[in-house]
Amino acid sequence: MSASSINLAVIPGDGIGPEVIAEAVKVLEKAVAAEGVALEQTHYKLGAQHWLETGETLPDEVLEDLRTRDAILFGAVGAAPGDTRIPSGIIEREMLLKLRFSLDHYVNLRPSRLYGTVGSPLANPGVIDFIVVREGTEGPYVGNGGTLRGGTPHEVATEVSLNTAHGVERVVRDAFRRASERPRKHVTLVHKHNVLVFAGHLWKRTVEAVASEFPEVTHDYLHIDAATIFMVTDPSRFDVIVTDNLFGDILTDLAAAVTGGIGLAASGNINMDRTAPSMFEPVHGSAPDIAGQQKADPTAAILSAVLLLDHLGYTTAARKIEAAVVADVESRTGEPRTTAAIGDAIAAAL
Amino acid sequence: MSASSINLAVIPGDGIGPEVIAEAVKVLEKAVAAEGVALEQTHYKLGAQHWLETGETLPDEVLEDLRTRDAILFGAVGAAPGDTRIPSGIIEREMLLKLRFSLDHYVNLRPSRLYGTVGSPLANPGVIDFIVVREGTEGPYVGNGGTLRGGTPHEVATEVSLNTAHGVERVVRDAFRRASERPRKHVTLVHKHNVLVFAGHLWKRTVEAVASEFPEVTHDYLHIDAATIFMVTDPSRFDVIVTDNLFGDILTDLAAAVTGGIGLAASGNINMDRTAPSMFEPVHGSAPDIAGQQKADPTAAILSAVLLLDHLGYTTAARKIEAAVVADVESRTGEPRTTAAIGDAIAAAL
Ligand SMILES: CC(C)[C@H](C(=O)O)[C@@H](O)C(=O)O
Ligand SMILES: CC(C)[C@H](C(=O)O)[C@@H](O)C(=O)O
Repeated sequence: MSASSINLAVIPGDGIGPEVIAEAVKVLEKAVAAEGVALEQTHYKLGAQHWLETGETLPDEVLEDLRTRDAILFGAVGAAPGDTRIPSGIIEREMLLKLRFSLDHYVNLRPSRLYGTVGSPLANPGVIDFIVVREGTEGPYVGNGGTLRGGTPHEVATEVSLNTAHGVERVVRDAFRRASERPRKHVTLVHKHNVLVFAGHLWKRTVEAVASEFPEVTHDYLHIDAATIFMVTDPSRFDVIVTDNLFGDILTDLAAAVTGGIGLAASGNINMDRTAPSMFEPVHGSAPDIAGQQKADPTAAILSAVLLLDHLGYTTAARKIEAAVVADVESRTGEPRTTAAIGDAIAAAL
Repeated sequence: MSASSINLAVIPGDGIGPEVIAEAVKVLEKAVAAEGVALEQTHYKLGAQHWLETGETLPDEVLEDLRTRDAILFGAVGAAPGDTRIPSGIIEREMLLKLRFSLDHYVNLRPSRLYGTVGSPLANPGVIDFIVVREGTEGPYVGNGGTLRGGTPHEVATEVSLNTAHGVERVVRDAFRRASERPRKHVTLVHKHNVLVFAGHLWKRTVEAVASEFPEVTHDYLHIDAATIFMVTDPSRFDVIVTDNLFGDILTDLAAAVTGGIGLAASGNINMDRTAPSMFEPVHGSAPDIAGQQKADPTAAILSAVLLLDHLGYTTAARKIEAAVVADVESRTGEPRTTAAIGDAIAAAL
């Protein structure tokens, strides 16, 4: 796709969100301008701070308005850990997860790549370059469960993981398609089917069925516990990981740590059917402890903008930003720079 | 407690199970003999191989017989990955998990310690010495769920996590009690309460309530995704982790990897009320690829025997084995030794 303008929704959010998003927008604007494309922005005030001021999480009108945009660039949301005014998890569920579910972001795409000199905590990380295709609209994230006799010694609390053939198949097919376009062409399913039999077997059977459509793609299986071991002992073995919403949440934070930290980890919440705008966000949270101090690394947000451009079909601009990020990251010396300084350096290198 | 004999059930199991258990029994026998205690052993044939031969997983009579023992020493169970004759997960669920649930092993205790020279994959691991108190009898492991319209495009598969005040409180109290006896006296609850609200809040409220009984113990909270990051960037921060069955499964494999590998990771499935025998097993699996070749490291099995002795009150013998293991592990050069050679060396050093 190519058009003379991108109609972008921007949700800076809380904490370091506004700071890192400012840099991502700066870089994005410059990169698309070079292609003759204008960036039309609509900013939305949402998040924990907005909830404190208004009691709103994600009003229906706002959700409907967001649907009219081409894509959403999202910073981070979340209150300071000690802030007891905000019911725990309410912003995450009624705003962030509500967006992912309402806009049918079934592919939660999280690439992991170790850049030359960036510090992995591993002594011998090897070459790390894989993507996690995390299911984004079902599993244990559906909010289905309840509490019986709450607060009594007889309390029972349940959480129901819901998994559908429709939901699993479309994300598994996406993972195989992505694998078929990569040099190594390998998919690893991560689950825990020896314990979570019902969901696990749906995933396994679906992978077997979809694999037969992609004879050039190889595949294997790892239990989630074993996958975390390989993530620290042999991360090079991974090419494309496909997994459920919760296992994907866990594995991608670990993967980000192993590839030099959450300051570099980008993600896309993608609706591959394009029935609603997709949303791009750094994997990191709002980090209230360093907010407003220009200490946050905007690289994850900038790399999320790269995923956004790829999704909209602006691949030339995407590759330019990516190259500028790689050059910047590989030349880092450990000297601290401000959030804006990093954004400026990447923008200048475009 | 102290008695003139230990009535021990031994379940060697599959793959490398028999090899590592032989060494654990060797060391155990010698250590208790020095205290004038006899080791009476009853061996049970159970596991994937036994299932292939008999179709039995864990017959009721065997379970009742196991109840009469003082403790169970368990190797590992599980078929070779490619073996399609065995329905996936059947041995794990109908035998291993059935034992944990039937014998009410609510404290799944998994210590993690990095010994001097043993290779952690981390560049700067620091001092690692924590325990994970994993809930062992509920959560997503209850086997509660189902499949609707299986094998059709309309399939729905559910998994239900069941959590009770009774189940959560007893394991949280155990974690605080253990923390109160450790120098750092700190408990970290790991969960995902921003998404798994119902179960998560039961865990959080229970920790707050139990914490008030232990004013000398500090505590904090981490989401499971953040906990995996700290496990590779700052594992020293952990003292006692308390968490649910599934998060505990994931975190303890990662912890084992970070502290030099699954060859060293011991575990106890403990019934703290002593209404049934507790069971001690290495965290590793049956590793069919190296079975019968004397390549497996029996250290995890031997350290599991240490947990067994501690549970039964034979602390002198426990400390002796522990010291012998530490000396052996710290003097390792990387030269390969057979399973028996490692067992012999540790037994000789007692
Ligand atoms: C904030 C939280 C709900 C979210 C998740 O669990 O998906 C976050 O951890 C992530 O990975 O994007
Ligand atoms: C074999 C499997 C059922 C088991 C578990 O998930 O508990 C294992 O991974 C463990 O950690 O002991």
